[in-house]
Amino acid sequence: MSGFTPIRILPGEGIEVLDQTRLPQEERYLRLSTVAEVAEAIRSLRVRGAPLLGVTGACGMAIAGEERGAGPEALAESAAELKATRPTAVDLGAMIDEALVAVAAASGDEEGRRAALWRFAERALARQRERDAALARHGRDLPGLEGAVLTHCNTGGLATGGAGTALAVIAEAWRAGRIERCYATETRPLLQGARLTMWELGALGIPGTLLPDTAAASLIASGRGGAVVTGADRIAANGDGANKVGTYGLAAVAARHGVPFYLAAPASTFDGATPSGEAIPIEFRGDDEVGGFGGERWSPDGGGVYNPAFDVTPADLIAGIVTESGVLRPPYGPAIAALTG
Amino acid sequence: MSGFTPIRILPGEGIEVLDQTRLPQEERYLRLSTVAEVAEAIRSLRVRGAPLLGVTGACGMAIAGEERGAGPEALAESAAELKATRPTAVDLGAMIDEALVAVAAASGDEEGRRAALWRFAERALARQRERDAALARHGRDLPGLEGAVLTHCNTGGLATGGAGTALAVIAEAWRAGRIERCYATETRPLLQGARLTMWELGALGIPGTLLPDTAAASLIASGRGGAVVTGADRIAANGDGANKVGTYGLAAVAARHGVPFYLAAPASTFDGATPSGEAIPIEFRGDDEVGGFGGERWSPDGGGVYNPAFDVTPADLIAGIVTESGVLRPPYGPAIAALTG
Repeated sequence: MSGFTPIRILPGEGIEVLDQTRLPQEERYLRLSTVAEVAEAIRSLRVRGAPLLGVTGACGMAIAGEERGAGPEALAESAAELKATRPTAVDLGAMIDEALVAVAAASGDEEGRRAALWRFAERALARQRERDAALARHGRDLPGLEGAVLTHCNTGGLATGGAGTALAVIAEAWRAGRIERCYATETRPLLQGARLTMWELGALGIPGTLLPDTAAASLIASGRGGAVVTGADRIAANGDGANKVGTYGLAAVAARHGVPFYLAAPASTFDGATPSGEAIPIEFRGDDEVGGFGGERWSPDGGGVYNPAFDVTPADLIAGIVTESGVLRPPYGPAIAALTG
Repeated sequence: MSGFTPIRILPGEGIEVLDQTRLPQEERYLRLSTVAEVAEAIRSLRVRGAPLLGVTGACGMAIAGEERGAGPEALAESAAELKATRPTAVDLGAMIDEALVAVAAASGDEEGRRAALWRFAERALARQRERDAALARHGRDLPGLEGAVLTHCNTGGLATGGAGTALAVIAEAWRAGRIERCYATETRPLLQGARLTMWELGALGIPGTLLPDTAAASLIASGRGGAVVTGADRIAANGDGANKVGTYGLAAVAARHGVPFYLAAPASTFDGATPSGEAIPIEFRGDDEVGGFGGERWSPDGGGVYNPAFDVTPADLIAGIVTESGVLRPPYGPAIAALTG
């Protein structure tokens, strides 16, 4: 297993999260004990990754109970504030809603409600760890996970709190001796591949090779990757999947070369109410992320930017979707209906 | 015409070149009046782009005549010194050799030989401008150059001394009122789009929008780009084209959405002796370009990188190739044979 955890729960007090914006230079844990601090950490991507955002949302509700009271009105207000930090993140909203259900079922006094919120947060993290382990086992033997694989963005333990999704599958295939190397894109604009995936591969002992996003098509065409495996942020009822911007381009090129493209995502990522990718709302992010990084600017001021956080890969480009319940295969409609129904 | 020129010739005195290493932060012209100064400017990439290096080489020979004398031996020595600055730059060496031929044909006295070298340098720049202008006119009316276009890397006047190649086509289409906006990729790893293309678009007054390389597939899928236009570094006899890494991915996605993908390149780019893209040698570049930029490092040390400078777009993805002699259309084999034969 990896030698780190991105989140620690301190019941009654708060949480400690690894500040992912500081990696790989610095492994700094932040203590969060107010809703505003949790919201800031989510908004600033100090905590990121759909499942870890879910766990963090549950923790945020427990923190809200401590800070602002655990009555229904106070909690509803805190829930709205936390959900608004990343509107496309379905896990975040879902886990916040689950926390509200859990507290509603708890004993009526304030203390009991607060304790119920902390218990829910701890269970959420434990369940995440079990889920990741199951997902990784299901994905390990997929066709094409041979020799080397390509991945995009960060989908390891840093993104979930457990072993991860796509990177957990890759790590399992590596432990099983099926693959020898993982290629990781830099993943502009926020460089999660360069900063986080390369750091996690190092922590796991898996040989990693970094490439500019522009070089991914060349890599796939060269035959160096037996498969492409990424995570997903939201999967529609027909199997269209939204993931980190850049994913769709990888899937389109992989299809041209007969290289299987897989999504690895927990069942909570499926959104049965969204019929297809066209209906998935895409978050657009700020200008300052493009044409520079950190304090450095490379482009002249004043031009506009096009900076969507996600893109949508159509179902017909996806060879399989790995979940904690097994691998879904096309046609996805019935499989997803069974999973979400 | 563009609101800048990367090179100005001052006959009998020297040249002024825009220091491209300072862009986009600073528009600083350097006065070069010795061979050593010209050599330093080329070696340090203050002047770059294959055609502009050719013009600069011709100017360097005229400066050599003034500084060191225009006799055959002195010129041969200066020629060797200038060629050695970028040994793989074909245009640089070729134009220096052409300057030697031109001076050999000039009248015998020192003053006449010096004047001949300056005339040759001025003609070299004028020819480049005519070539670029002709290419731009041929490309202007292509189908799909409507609304907005997407380009990759830098292909404007900074690279040629004239109006450029792909960016010159885009500028002509903008002047003709056909397009309103140019989308430019950042172009990792060296960020020529963010640094140079966005600066040129500003200088030309063309509304420009910058995007991470990862967002290009999303942009194309969204219908925001009516066409994709890029330059090319070498085009094989069958029309397969090598260009800045990342180009192939753009072409593959454009094809899925029926968006025309064009190359714009002078006739000198065609290599009739190379049958197809598979035979084009691809330069791999150093580790330090990936996982960081300038002095900044984002990725942990020690991992390997995959860093090809170019990729190859197969001919079947290319809707047309714009040259100074006209637009080539598929099937490219016969058209290229006629052009290079």
